[in-house]
Amino acid sequence: MSSKHNTHLTALRGALQAQGLDGFLVPRADEHLGEYVPPMAERLAWLTGFTGRAGLAVVLAERAAVFSDGRYTLQLEQQTDPALWERRHIIEDKPEDWLRANAAGKRIGYDPWLISAEGLKRFTGVELVPVTQNPVDSVWTDRPAPPMAPAVPHPEEYAGEAATTKRARLGAMLREAGQDAAVLTDPASLAWLFNIRGSDVEFCPFVLGYALLYTDGTASLFMAAEKITPEVRAHLGHGVSVAERGALPGALAVLAGKTVRYDPANMPVWFETALQDAGAKIAAGPDPVALPRALKNAVEQAGARAAHLRDGAAMVNFLAWLASAKGETEISAAARLLEYRAAETLFRGESFPAISGAGEDGAIIHYRVSAESDRAIKPNEVYLIDSGGQYLDGTTDITRTIWTGPGAAPEAVKAHVTLVLAGHIALARAVFPVGVAGAHLDAFARQELWRAGLDYDHGTGHGVGSYLSVHEGPASISRAAKPVPLAAGMILSNEPGFYLPGAYGIRLENLVLVQPADFPAAKKPFLRFETLTLTPFDRALIEPRLLTPEALDWLNAYHARVRAALAPLVAPEARAWLEAATAEI
Amino acid sequence: MSSKHNTHLTALRGALQAQGLDGFLVPRADEHLGEYVPPMAERLAWLTGFTGRAGLAVVLAERAAVFSDGRYTLQLEQQTDPALWERRHIIEDKPEDWLRANAAGKRIGYDPWLISAEGLKRFTGVELVPVTQNPVDSVWTDRPAPPMAPAVPHPEEYAGEAATTKRARLGAMLREAGQDAAVLTDPASLAWLFNIRGSDVEFCPFVLGYALLYTDGTASLFMAAEKITPEVRAHLGHGVSVAERGALPGALAVLAGKTVRYDPANMPVWFETALQDAGAKIAAGPDPVALPRALKNAVEQAGARAAHLRDGAAMVNFLAWLASAKGETEISAAARLLEYRAAETLFRGESFPAISGAGEDGAIIHYRVSAESDRAIKPNEVYLIDSGGQYLDGTTDITRTIWTGPGAAPEAVKAHVTLVLAGHIALARAVFPVGVAGAHLDAFARQELWRAGLDYDHGTGHGVGSYLSVHEGPASISRAAKPVPLAAGMILSNEPGFYLPGAYGIRLENLVLVQPADFPAAKKPFLRFETLTLTPFDRALIEPRLLTPEALDWLNAYHARVRAALAPLVAPEARAWLEAATAEI
Repeated sequence: MSSKHNTHLTALRGALQAQGLDGFLVPRADEHLGEYVPPMAERLAWLTGFTGRAGLAVVLAERAAVFSDGRYTLQLEQQTDPALWERRHIIEDKPEDWLRANAAGKRIGYDPWLISAEGLKRFTGVELVPVTQNPVDSVWTDRPAPPMAPAVPHPEEYAGEAATTKRARLGAMLREAGQDAAVLTDPASLAWLFNIRGSDVEFCPFVLGYALLYTDGTASLFMAAEKITPEVRAHLGHGVSVAERGALPGALAVLAGKTVRYDPANMPVWFETALQDAGAKIAAGPDPVALPRALKNAVEQAGARAAHLRDGAAMVNFLAWLASAKGETEISAAARLLEYRAAETLFRGESFPAISGAGEDGAIIHYRVSAESDRAIKPNEVYLIDSGGQYLDGTTDITRTIWTGPGAAPEAVKAHVTLVLAGHIALARAVFPVGVAGAHLDAFARQELWRAGLDYDHGTGHGVGSYLSVHEGPASISRAAKPVPLAAGMILSNEPGFYLPGAYGIRLENLVLVQPADFPAAKKPFLRFETLTLTPFDRALIEPRLLTPEALDWLNAYHARVRAALAPLVAPEARAWLEAATAEI
Repeated sequence: MSSKHNTHLTALRGALQAQGLDGFLVPRADEHLGEYVPPMAERLAWLTGFTGRAGLAVVLAERAAVFSDGRYTLQLEQQTDPALWERRHIIEDKPEDWLRANAAGKRIGYDPWLISAEGLKRFTGVELVPVTQNPVDSVWTDRPAPPMAPAVPHPEEYAGEAATTKRARLGAMLREAGQDAAVLTDPASLAWLFNIRGSDVEFCPFVLGYALLYTDGTASLFMAAEKITPEVRAHLGHGVSVAERGALPGALAVLAGKTVRYDPANMPVWFETALQDAGAKIAAGPDPVALPRALKNAVEQAGARAAHLRDGAAMVNFLAWLASAKGETEISAAARLLEYRAAETLFRGESFPAISGAGEDGAIIHYRVSAESDRAIKPNEVYLIDSGGQYLDGTTDITRTIWTGPGAAPEAVKAHVTLVLAGHIALARAVFPVGVAGAHLDAFARQELWRAGLDYDHGTGHGVGSYLSVHEGPASISRAAKPVPLAAGMILSNEPGFYLPGAYGIRLENLVLVQPADFPAAKKPFLRFETLTLTPFDRALIEPRLLTPEALDWLNAYHARVRAALAPLVAPEARAWLEAATAEI
């Protein structure tokens, strides 16, 4: 909250006037509509000061409002100047209603690269005008440059399938669907399809760009020339043409009369307009890469297992160290964990900012420790650490909940942890036929909590990429998401929790790999989960009498597996801790 | 399959020519698009001979095809003449594809009372023409008369809420939604809203008609004058005008400029056209009565409990008799069960045709015994009986699976039954927060079967009306249905099963009532199921070692409850059987 945001807002209003606009939408989004937004696309933060990961500002000549959801109510109040901004709850007080009430008959601009066609639809009754030049960019004088990290080939040793083969089979899928080409805007889809990785955004090895895939398996890649090293150009091969983003309109113009797959819900509306202008027929449908990418092949599965072995060793080294550490804080502990991970081979960085929450901080589901919020990890409290690594052969994501000791944990805390663990195990043990979606299994992880009148306000699991995004579609284990049938090769998280505000948070997370279940006589294929993550659950927080014999058997077998797998890999000083932590209960 | 269907088809073709049509659609549907079709609306059976409960005939000048789904493949072949009809699978070989291939440029008629707007949408690329007079009706010379059974008031003693109150609160709901009126075409909605019942169709106390509900709680009822006795006219009161169906266009014309709720998925498209012609604005949305009707009030809940007590007594009398019966058949046993039910007070008839299947017949999920299929119930086999009653105070639906003895049941059969029972109990014991739909709990009833590589090909539960349809929306316990959150007062079936074709079928069905779960400290409301049905599960088919201690406790508590509730109500000769059947396991 500073006078600089006043200056920014005034500058934007001047630019709007110059462009003949009465207002403008500034969403928290980049030109790929993804989760990872590079600094050059943080227009909402530059304009308003608000740094939450979801939001929208609406600027009129005399008034301006900024909207976000319930997770960010406090942050929105703290970071924005009430003299400049009306602060609103985006669900309870919708931007479209605010616009209809305050901008009747006005021309409101939007950047068609920063919103989807579906996203635009909510603004009925308002005159919305696409701009060709984002007015924020024209007044943001010290705007960071677009990320220009070079792409690197992702070797077949880790990808498991040549990019030419991937393109050929997806091209054939398009042909079978009666489509001539597909638009790709998700950097994860580019990374998977072309077997390339990069470092354009934090925590995820994306190279930003766009692509068109054709039925013959050839493709046009639209990416800054700076990212295409000679090695990458050679890796892409003959079937892939490369051009700057500016070449997109010309490439789309060639598709006149062709049927082009495009996702109106998740891709910038710019593509819809450009396809219509080009005279192409739009086949609305999801990104054709999304499902194939989620089905990890045998090499990716082996890579995931290998990455989880190393990640488990790092976690055990960390937990063994933590067990006797003194005077640590949330930040210093997370930093130490990163050091352990960084010592492992093929490690490339964290897969997301670690959530390191002691006591009451652990009860904040999306807690991100800052210098201001950092606090000591004290004796005899609950400590939650949710973290993950990017390795060349796989992406990890694990949460453990620890009792810091040295005293015994209160029975009530153990009861809560054990209810969460019972849910984790119930899901881990699930067996189900093909066709079942995560939405139909989510309740397995909650039933013991529900029976006690308790619950957690988040999904039970999300998809995870292969040295890609730690949040990957299309499948999930959540009632809120569209049900996508689970299929062999998918990697998902299993992370039930329980949060007692002001006291502590509990979350127990392993990654699981969907595998065929072997029933030779079954009339249809069945599936089960293979648990990938290898790290003990804290015995100090488990009350065995609250687990069924089957659950206790699972836990003991899991701990035995963890011990056998990790004992050769952990630091010598961690071995005794591992032995004790995985002893039979 | 007879020459009469040849005559019918020829006559219809003559009528089409006279109406200037090249073809005509004949769906298996009545003018309410419901499950219960009166004989006058069995046009498909009259035309083709096919009596399945789902299907569509398409008649052209030179060719004709009849379509149904996989349940009826054999029946379709047996009942229709291949010289007259191409017989098709409605999913694998769609009628719209057949029409596009065989009727390009032709005018195909349809009766707008017999298809919904959504149903019509599938026929893209075909010129479809609504008719004002159904050409089948003009040539069906001995067509049965429309049912004209008089309506009867459903007393508040059973309905629990005055019709005026119901109309007032639903009218207020419409007003809040910004709607001026709602179209009602479902006889179940009329029955509930006006507190009337009748006997226009079998198994369900419907009076056929239509209605318009207005925001002030007044309504227009469109129903044959023959059905409106002076008593019913007085019962309906001042707020309800009554007219023949022919008055509908005039009543809709008055709604010019008004917003009218109408369901394009489940109501005849005739209403959409008529509303458009009238100049009304259509608010597409589900029948506003559907959800309120599903939430049984305290009187309906008490009625359901009372009806289930009597129904349980009839079931126990039947099962006790069956235990020592000799030489019975599927038909004679079902008839005997009906006699026991008929002896109970407030009984008004079966709620559906009993499924009485011995041995391999029990493996046919929708088995309906006929004189041809009837077979003896033999010693030492599995017998499945799925039946229900309509009582003035409630509707019942129960399935039990019996071992006929006198020998012991094979271990494999007991294992299958016990897996099904474990699923039944897991669902019966479920506790869940408000917001959870049946789709999210369906897997509870399947998990133990899934773990053995087994499953059943039907949903786990359907909604049940209050002295109304035994299949009632909007909620269900099924992954296939749209997820509708469960809510206190809903009555649903809990009926997992397992079917071994050629050998036996297992299904264990109780009705359950959704109840608030009492967690004073919970942050949100939780729900649980109260089991309404009171009848023992056959101990001869239960292997206790395959049940968890919690499941066994549930079973013993349930049997104790059944014993205590029914011992005073059953015939003296059934008491010893009840005592033994409910003894602790």
